[in-house]
Amino acid sequence: MEPRRVTLADMNQKFEHKIKVLFQHCDPAGIVFYPRYFEMVNQTVEEWHEVGLRHSFSQMHRESGYGVPTVSIGAEFTAPSHMGDVLTWSLEVTKLGRTSAHLRIIAVCGEALRMTATPVLVSVHMATGRPVPWSDDIRARMGSFLIAAK
Amino acid sequence: MEPRRVTLADMNQKFEHKIKVLFQHCDPAGIVFYPRYFEMVNQTVEEWHEVGLRHSFSQMHRESGYGVPTVSIGAEFTAPSHMGDVLTWSLEVTKLGRTSAHLRIIAVCGEALRMTATPVLVSVHMATGRPVPWSDDIRARMGSFLIAAK
Amino acid sequence: MEPRRVTLADMNQKFEHKIKVLFQHCDPAGIVFYPRYFEMVNQTVEEWHEVGLRHSFSQMHRESGYGVPTVSIGAEFTAPSHMGDVLTWSLEVTKLGRTSAHLRIIAVCGEALRMTATPVLVSVHMATGRPVPWSDDIRARMGSFLIAAK
Amino acid sequence: MEPRRVTLADMNQKFEHKIKVLFQHCDPAGIVFYPRYFEMVNQTVEEWHEVGLRHSFSQMHRESGYGVPTVSIGAEFTAPSHMGDVLTWSLEVTKLGRTSAHLRIIAVCGEALRMTATPVLVSVHMATGRPVPWSDDIRARMGSFLIAAK
Repeated sequence: MEPRRVTLADMNQKFEHKIKVLFQHCDPAGIVFYPRYFEMVNQTVEEWHEVGLRHSFSQMHRESGYGVPTVSIGAEFTAPSHMGDVLTWSLEVTKLGRTSAHLRIIAVCGEALRMTATPVLVSVHMATGRPVPWSDDIRARMGSFLIAAK
Repeated sequence: MEPRRVTLADMNQKFEHKIKVLFQHCDPAGIVFYPRYFEMVNQTVEEWHEVGLRHSFSQMHRESGYGVPTVSIGAEFTAPSHMGDVLTWSLEVTKLGRTSAHLRIIAVCGEALRMTATPVLVSVHMATGRPVPWSDDIRARMGSFLIAAK
Repeated sequence: MEPRRVTLADMNQKFEHKIKVLFQHCDPAGIVFYPRYFEMVNQTVEEWHEVGLRHSFSQMHRESGYGVPTVSIGAEFTAPSHMGDVLTWSLEVTKLGRTSAHLRIIAVCGEALRMTATPVLVSVHMATGRPVPWSDDIRARMGSFLIAAK
Repeated sequence: MEPRRVTLADMNQKFEHKIKVLFQHCDPAGIVFYPRYFEMVNQTVEEWHEVGLRHSFSQMHRESGYGVPTVSIGAEFTAPSHMGDVLTWSLEVTKLGRTSAHLRIIAVCGEALRMTATPVLVSVHMATGRPVPWSDDIRARMGSFLIAAK
């Protein structure tokens, strides 16, 4: 009956972390300036790589020569966030391709939905910019965050 | 025949400005970090308000009590941009509602498409957050940037 | 004997928190871009207000009409920080005036000093921009972070 | 007699460019958030390298293997800047060492001083982080921006 209630059922595993809205995220209207939300989305993807996939960005960029650029993203800003709000960000994989991963990332404050982002990441070889298949290891770990088919 | 060639035909009027990619826009991979692109998109909307609509953000926020928050946005990052690249940003209105405006904003470097963004702005009364119709004046000016029906 | 060893002796009370260096903080050289350090400095001052002084920025800006702009700052960047580094930020008050507070904020990674910042905050009435004396309450709490005279 | 009047006499050559204060530079108090000023300072140094020294950052970082990290900086924020203000940034060299350059950068809006920054740059070999002497070429060009001894 409550269409905005956030349900993340049917997920096998879900990654979640918190970010507090700081002075530096807010614009002259006193609410989060939307490009700062994308920094938080990127931070969520980064923390997920480190904690959820056990393959940190620093390891990836400094050692492996591979990267995961965002090739597209959609976002909806459902309600504004204010200084001091603690946002809970959660991430699920909605589609896992050979060289790509479609994610759905949402931010809630308490029960209230604030924003939804749907980035698509592609695994690339940094020197050439060419897509490369996920390693079996990463693919298996990403798979555990894949939302179950309904 | 060339699907990536940027054509902006059928527009009545088009807003355009340039932004140079600076050191501060670039990530450890040496390319524009995508949240910085959204700062450039916002700057494009802001310059368009000032130059194209003759209704600057500072005037709007400091005097009128109205704002134009972005309620949703889609983006595609077609090719990476590097330090020193001069990006030409252009903006057209794809749909003009009573209280909303759908925009298409693209960035090119020379002939090469770099990114496309499709923000939806809503006219709101800042104190209440409620949507309010565009003034006749703003609506008429926005209309001159509306892409012609084909 | 070791001039770079970080000692914070002679302090009555010290505020400390941690910030992890993220992808978004780093420049094309792969190290923290120095304006991002100032965002971390500001975050340290903001967390100190909330936790140490029990007077949050959101409370201050939304309710009281007072603010604490930074009127000057000095900074030394002793060694670069890389993605994934966890920085421990600590703050002490070096001088407490009637309307101003001189701070010393340092960031270390393990034992290694990374940067030192010395901001001067002034208590102002936001509408007029005029300096106003600290309240007795805030002054007393700030005093507990004042470095002891030697 | 007027201590705040901006005089840049006794300079051989001076680098100057303009930056407009945008929505994205401003904080909930409606004025420039000071870490954004440091992005403008960095942009000033970057433009000076390209236009004044004819040795762009992109050339430097992508080709030469040398960089010019800021090792220390001081700043005074004399008066706040608001959305829409056009700031004129100027740069002079106050001291030129074998491997370092001391700069003074100021921002004015009309006749009014807004901020002063005094960064110290060091020429380093990026791979090792070791200081290296300026090339004769760069040193000569930097010298033309050196403020004359009084």
